[in-house]
Amino acid sequence: MSLSAPIKVAVTGAAGNVGYALVFRIAAGQMLGAGQPVHLSLIEIPPAMRQAEGVAMELEDCAFPLLDGIDVTDSAEEGFDGVQHALLVGSRPRGAGESRADLVGSNLPIFRSQGQALNARAADDVRVTVVGNPANLNALIAHRHAPDIPASRVTALTRLDHNRAVSLVARTAGVRPDQVADVAIWGNHSATQYPCLAHATIDGHRDWPLFSDQAWIEEQFIPRIQNRGAEVIEVRGASSAASAAVAVTDHVRDWHLGTGGDRTTSMAIVGEGQYDTPPGVVFSFPVRVRDGEIEVVSGLQLTPFDRRMVDVTGKDLLELRLTADAFLS
Amino acid sequence: MSLSAPIKVAVTGAAGNVGYALVFRIAAGQMLGAGQPVHLSLIEIPPAMRQAEGVAMELEDCAFPLLDGIDVTDSAEEGFDGVQHALLVGSRPRGAGESRADLVGSNLPIFRSQGQALNARAADDVRVTVVGNPANLNALIAHRHAPDIPASRVTALTRLDHNRAVSLVARTAGVRPDQVADVAIWGNHSATQYPCLAHATIDGHRDWPLFSDQAWIEEQFIPRIQNRGAEVIEVRGASSAASAAVAVTDHVRDWHLGTGGDRTTSMAIVGEGQYDTPPGVVFSFPVRVRDGEIEVVSGLQLTPFDRRMVDVTGKDLLELRLTADAFLS
Repeated sequence: MSLSAPIKVAVTGAAGNVGYALVFRIAAGQMLGAGQPVHLSLIEIPPAMRQAEGVAMELEDCAFPLLDGIDVTDSAEEGFDGVQHALLVGSRPRGAGESRADLVGSNLPIFRSQGQALNARAADDVRVTVVGNPANLNALIAHRHAPDIPASRVTALTRLDHNRAVSLVARTAGVRPDQVADVAIWGNHSATQYPCLAHATIDGHRDWPLFSDQAWIEEQFIPRIQNRGAEVIEVRGASSAASAAVAVTDHVRDWHLGTGGDRTTSMAIVGEGQYDTPPGVVFSFPVRVRDGEIEVVSGLQLTPFDRRMVDVTGKDLLELRLTADAFLS
Repeated sequence: MSLSAPIKVAVTGAAGNVGYALVFRIAAGQMLGAGQPVHLSLIEIPPAMRQAEGVAMELEDCAFPLLDGIDVTDSAEEGFDGVQHALLVGSRPRGAGESRADLVGSNLPIFRSQGQALNARAADDVRVTVVGNPANLNALIAHRHAPDIPASRVTALTRLDHNRAVSLVARTAGVRPDQVADVAIWGNHSATQYPCLAHATIDGHRDWPLFSDQAWIEEQFIPRIQNRGAEVIEVRGASSAASAAVAVTDHVRDWHLGTGGDRTTSMAIVGEGQYDTPPGVVFSFPVRVRDGEIEVVSGLQLTPFDRRMVDVTGKDLLELRLTADAFLS
């Protein structure tokens, strides 16, 4: 087969549960396409380096035709050198009883130094996707420390929430997930997020009972999506890993190859105050991707209920930013 | 999109590490093809049922268009009802210091009852792939207890060994894995296996130095493939999971869709004494798949070295069978 030049993809936390589920998908061509070779750079913290070497061995053992090469490193500078897609998976998610300040304090050093390393070493066309929680905050910290990387090239993952919302609508209506369109996740990838059905359709239509059942939307749909992560932990005894990895490949594939046609998805981007949301936070919007550029869907009418929900998650993100500002000043 | 009827796929040990890596690949269409809906039946032992429910939740959360439905059960009868592809992943691999009799004793009840359940409940065209170790023995036990399922429809996985061998040849020669052909795994998926390069080619040619470097083949290549599983455990701190799952999807895809052209792969099948190997054991051969039927590659010339290696692994399998016979009589 005739192949284009390899694309370098870096994954932090590559030996963790999400990283482990993710790197095999990337190497199999599910993220960048079946004709696109990849070079994988696995980045881990020193105590997990040997485990990451083991992951690299298993990647070799798959004989993936598209996997051009693998590096394993505990240096962000080395791992991000020339990288075109940086997937920041490793982080310090919120522990039980931790305050917002604890959360910021434990993640700031990680994403500051990764932002700096990306700024210094990444390829000119790098695209950054932050997966490690608190993802929106971590993306903001990386963005603030990577002044040479355009803001439009830094995102955080809300695709897992988006996929969960699509799936719940599909199961409730008894249709396939690909018949559902224009679901949107607004705001933070946290329990304040607003999973919005105000513009959603099934087979292009709004005239499905569930879309006008405001009681179901408010009492069932929204809280179930907001709390789905905790529900999975409770049942599976471990946090979402494979489903998160699938969402990462969905997110990056859409960013890399475009959403196509009129299809929309959800991505958290460095906001510019669209829909009167706080500018300068990493906020999830309904988006399309055309020619590699993420465009927030424009002209949507927000009801007073939508407005209230969007404002709640905006306030959450603003408070996280202010906490981070206090650390950074 | 217009889709064909869903195919029912059952996975035992679905919440284990290999099962967890596998079911998302199946639901994403990587095993049976991008146009083929699947119905997944996740089978677990009672203590792992809640974890399996969690896996099902994560599968839902991916919004896979091809995933027609999911069942979770601890009953083999229920899980195998109408199944077309049965992937037997759960088992009791050899523990430290366990004898061959211990190994047989702990796996026999599992695969006897699964064989019986498959015999009673599976679809007429069921195909069985045994992954859980000792895979060849377990496949034999299931086969012996499923008299209505043709022997040609029971296999054990040696594709992971095959992929490892292809990858090591490719890395040594500095080529892509898809340039390597006609590598073969003979015998048992254990350290007695014979990973054979006697007919292997790169870009269709034999005139690569590594193929005539018998010292490298005997002292490096063969022992590294035979012991790769242990090497991964030593480095990663856990046994191969994602690479095993990739191998399962490779094996079943080739079985379901055919190997295509002249391409060969390796599968362990209920042997009929081909190449003077012991009949009535589950033995890995170089194979092609045409019209859904597995055909052992015929007419290969075995050197005295090949012969010796094939006999060693045949003896290993025969002894396992005799141990099992003693239990069953």
